[in-house]
Amino acid sequence: MASYQAPLREIDFVLNDVLKVGRLAELAEFSDATPDTLSGLIAEAAKLIEEKLAPLNAVSDAKGCKLENGEVTVPDGFTEFWAMYRDAGWIGISQKKEYGGANLPYTLAKVLEELLCSANVAFALYPGLTQGCFEALEASASDEIKRIYLPRLATGEWSGTMCITEPQAGSDVGAAKTRATPNGDGSYRIDGGKIFITSGEHRMADNIVHFVLARLPDSPPGVKGLSTFVVPKYLVNPDGSLGARNGVRVQSIEHKMGINGSVTCVLNFDNAQGWIVGAPNQGIQNMFVMMNLARIMVGFQGLGQCELATQNAIRYARERKQGKAFNGKSEIIEHPDVRRMLLQMKATTEGARVLAYETAMYVDLARHHPDASVREAAQDWVDLNTPLVKAFCTDAAVELGSLVIQVYGGHGYIKEHGVEQILRDAKILCLYEGTNGIQAMDLVRRKLMLHNGRLPGRFFAAVKADLDGAPDALGAPLSAALDALERTTRWVQETYKSNPEDAAFGCCDYQRAFALTYLGWNWLRMARAAEKTGDAAFAKTKRVTAEYFATRLLSQVPALLGNVRESAASIMALDASSL
Amino acid sequence: MASYQAPLREIDFVLNDVLKVGRLAELAEFSDATPDTLSGLIAEAAKLIEEKLAPLNAVSDAKGCKLENGEVTVPDGFTEFWAMYRDAGWIGISQKKEYGGANLPYTLAKVLEELLCSANVAFALYPGLTQGCFEALEASASDEIKRIYLPRLATGEWSGTMCITEPQAGSDVGAAKTRATPNGDGSYRIDGGKIFITSGEHRMADNIVHFVLARLPDSPPGVKGLSTFVVPKYLVNPDGSLGARNGVRVQSIEHKMGINGSVTCVLNFDNAQGWIVGAPNQGIQNMFVMMNLARIMVGFQGLGQCELATQNAIRYARERKQGKAFNGKSEIIEHPDVRRMLLQMKATTEGARVLAYETAMYVDLARHHPDASVREAAQDWVDLNTPLVKAFCTDAAVELGSLVIQVYGGHGYIKEHGVEQILRDAKILCLYEGTNGIQAMDLVRRKLMLHNGRLPGRFFAAVKADLDGAPDALGAPLSAALDALERTTRWVQETYKSNPEDAAFGCCDYQRAFALTYLGWNWLRMARAAEKTGDAAFAKTKRVTAEYFATRLLSQVPALLGNVRESAASIMALDASSL
Repeated sequence: MASYQAPLREIDFVLNDVLKVGRLAELAEFSDATPDTLSGLIAEAAKLIEEKLAPLNAVSDAKGCKLENGEVTVPDGFTEFWAMYRDAGWIGISQKKEYGGANLPYTLAKVLEELLCSANVAFALYPGLTQGCFEALEASASDEIKRIYLPRLATGEWSGTMCITEPQAGSDVGAAKTRATPNGDGSYRIDGGKIFITSGEHRMADNIVHFVLARLPDSPPGVKGLSTFVVPKYLVNPDGSLGARNGVRVQSIEHKMGINGSVTCVLNFDNAQGWIVGAPNQGIQNMFVMMNLARIMVGFQGLGQCELATQNAIRYARERKQGKAFNGKSEIIEHPDVRRMLLQMKATTEGARVLAYETAMYVDLARHHPDASVREAAQDWVDLNTPLVKAFCTDAAVELGSLVIQVYGGHGYIKEHGVEQILRDAKILCLYEGTNGIQAMDLVRRKLMLHNGRLPGRFFAAVKADLDGAPDALGAPLSAALDALERTTRWVQETYKSNPEDAAFGCCDYQRAFALTYLGWNWLRMARAAEKTGDAAFAKTKRVTAEYFATRLLSQVPALLGNVRESAASIMALDASSL
Repeated sequence: MASYQAPLREIDFVLNDVLKVGRLAELAEFSDATPDTLSGLIAEAAKLIEEKLAPLNAVSDAKGCKLENGEVTVPDGFTEFWAMYRDAGWIGISQKKEYGGANLPYTLAKVLEELLCSANVAFALYPGLTQGCFEALEASASDEIKRIYLPRLATGEWSGTMCITEPQAGSDVGAAKTRATPNGDGSYRIDGGKIFITSGEHRMADNIVHFVLARLPDSPPGVKGLSTFVVPKYLVNPDGSLGARNGVRVQSIEHKMGINGSVTCVLNFDNAQGWIVGAPNQGIQNMFVMMNLARIMVGFQGLGQCELATQNAIRYARERKQGKAFNGKSEIIEHPDVRRMLLQMKATTEGARVLAYETAMYVDLARHHPDASVREAAQDWVDLNTPLVKAFCTDAAVELGSLVIQVYGGHGYIKEHGVEQILRDAKILCLYEGTNGIQAMDLVRRKLMLHNGRLPGRFFAAVKADLDGAPDALGAPLSAALDALERTTRWVQETYKSNPEDAAFGCCDYQRAFALTYLGWNWLRMARAAEKTGDAAFAKTKRVTAEYFATRLLSQVPALLGNVRESAASIMALDASSL
């Protein structure tokens, strides 16, 4: 069986030694959130998650969810764990006190997201979507809706969903057809069908709050004619008590490759009553408040799967004996090719953790820093990093999900060992909340263009500042990657205006090259920070892993960027029928 | 649902235009095997496989195999298809006429392997292991065993297995403990347990022939003390009729990530009666006759999955509409990043097909060419190519299995669409018959060293001869990759003697770089051959795909080879506990 221990030492190291999380406690909002407090909370949540949630991972995969007579049954133990997690106050840990939250940093909530997702990514989607729904309503809903819904979402009394996708409208959100018709009393009648609705129906929470994208009568076509609505499973009385069942029903649930403990619903809205959230035809903007945070969340899901894969691979490789390695030892960790796989996993996971945590910290700074110019800079980092976190951490989860099976050999393919589940669970992460190709297009066509192209410049400047005095083994490959990335970034920014097909053709390679360069910077910072801990063994492992990353992963950057700059004209000119 | 149409045009193009399969008909052995005959046979088998086997793929995955009261039930339709495939004579198509085969080229048998594996890789394992068992007995068994067993394996009246792995002996075959004790009558008593035995128990064939690795009393430790035995499920009378049930029983079957239609058994040998195959303590050599052919077979399994992934991705992308691409069209095949994924799949699959088919043709030439020096050269190619075919085609199957899901978006993750099965089925291919890391070690420590290192020289010379007059777009990147590969090959050959850890650490990167260079050569040859067909549209697609490969995949070679030449000393020096 796969097992899970929260990597508390690593988490503390990244938060405190690398990213200086103490900066958050200097904000008025988070004066209680000292590094010690955060560490204590993380350790407390970790204990609950390790002991009560991780053991459900294999069985929830095997049993999955059931739909009978319109009612969904979640896997054994989920309802009990939801109650424990809810009652401990973790679901609204970063929400405002006035809405029943604990008002602690978003960064803390994301660290818990990593832990939850390592232990059971399918379960993590229930609180994850609930937080997403909260964020969407908090940003755009009326005070009355906020007053009723937010406290109940923050406490986990109710859970949330986001209802965007329709059969004909996946990546093309603007093709959505679900209709919203004014009832004349301020509410709307919602009719239509939504697919791929995570947590769309279950009985763990008393009510389910659907955040729904729909189209008002006579609205413009495409994304500019979409509005957002809140549609509860049970109608809500003015005092917050529950009324009649609303006209939203689960029609079927999907049988999937993985995340079987997470219910994925086809929902029918048939004369359902809803209330508009935000202004008419502003739905796409409202949705993106939630979607951008959801993309960061999915990045953390990927990070959680990377960690799970890596720690199981290392543990197994330390115990399993086969033959004799060149150094005379029998554990497979001593075989060079097995060790190469483990270093690949370790270098990827730990480097990705810094990317993800730093992005979360910038969310906190963008929201709460007193200095407007710091908030602006932090928001630039969040905007730039969102596609990188989402795409890199999830592609890495699939890569590492495959590698952990490889380390286990044939045993990895047997369900009983529990690691093949990682690859199956991880693959969805590359698809939902915008496929990783959509992330790459967001990076190339939006993030590189925003504010006259200033976003990547913040990254280049930060890395250059840190390159000063870097040891050659880390600094030289990082500097080379950065130079190439800077030049290619200018090429993409210019080419996108004149020849978007060329710029778009290489967008995934560009995105990966950017993320690898970012991780190269993370490894330089980790190697330096580890040196200062005074723990020589820890510092040595970090240095060796940093050098592995610099030599063997950063080295991919020039070829990836070379791909980006090739013309795609002949390829795009081929007839679809001749492929 | 995923669907399958055999790519007959591609197969004919590779066999006839690229590899000149007519050379086989010039051999005395295969004078009937003209290109037209081969094409006709392939088309005939393809019709049967498309119509009768492919439709079983999804259902055999969903239902899997059942073990009840010691009896295995295979998925619905398998027994009927086995009978059809057997009665049409396909199982022994390349076996000698004297043993009931059709004596057609091994190359033809492997083309059929590709078709079978695209249609249903789980089913393909039953005839595949039967052919493997035939090959092992043909190479090493006594005439009496051959007389009894071979005709029944060639016709598919009986099926075969290879019983190698034990719980403590996976990659380390020499740790096998199964005992063989002389009975005094020329037979042996076999006792022990074997795991991961594909097709180890079922009732599609009248008897199952187990080819078993076991240890004689007082044999030397390790691989030098292993011998091989034939152990039938039912004892066999001298006239070939079946006698009593032998002492081999299925103890349990595995629940796996994929290939659910293939039964994977834990077998107990308890006072089973067996007969030695070949000389005592020569088991590992006997096993490798079968194992090397099995590795090529697994490469073809990977090719089959690559083809299945590619053709489904292209079909879906032609039909599915989302948004508007830059060129104004709506089909997702017109979106640059989707097209990039399709080109990646097409360039990989078609390039891999030439590698696999060429290897199969060299098997035929090594066996049957009248000129000893041609046979020797052909065997060198087979030896060199075996790890490349096995590892590259199976890694590619996983990569493309992931990409086809990505092309389908969220729908790809739903079982109903049938493409997530490809990734699950494909992953085993990287593990069995020697993990891909074992292949890389075979390449580095054996194949580069054989005959004073002459094997790779044959490849370098052949590519150089073809580079003459190559168009720049294809020739320049291939020439650069080849130069780097040649230099790194010399480095590996020298380093392996003095510092095997350094040479071994990069073995997988070296293997991939070698295979990519091989595929670069294949694409040069395909582009040229397509030009000569006179079909301008076909030639254009081939040229564009060749250029895609040259620019975007061959470009990985220098970085991969750079990795190979880095020292691994600091990494190998890390304590296992500090990883």
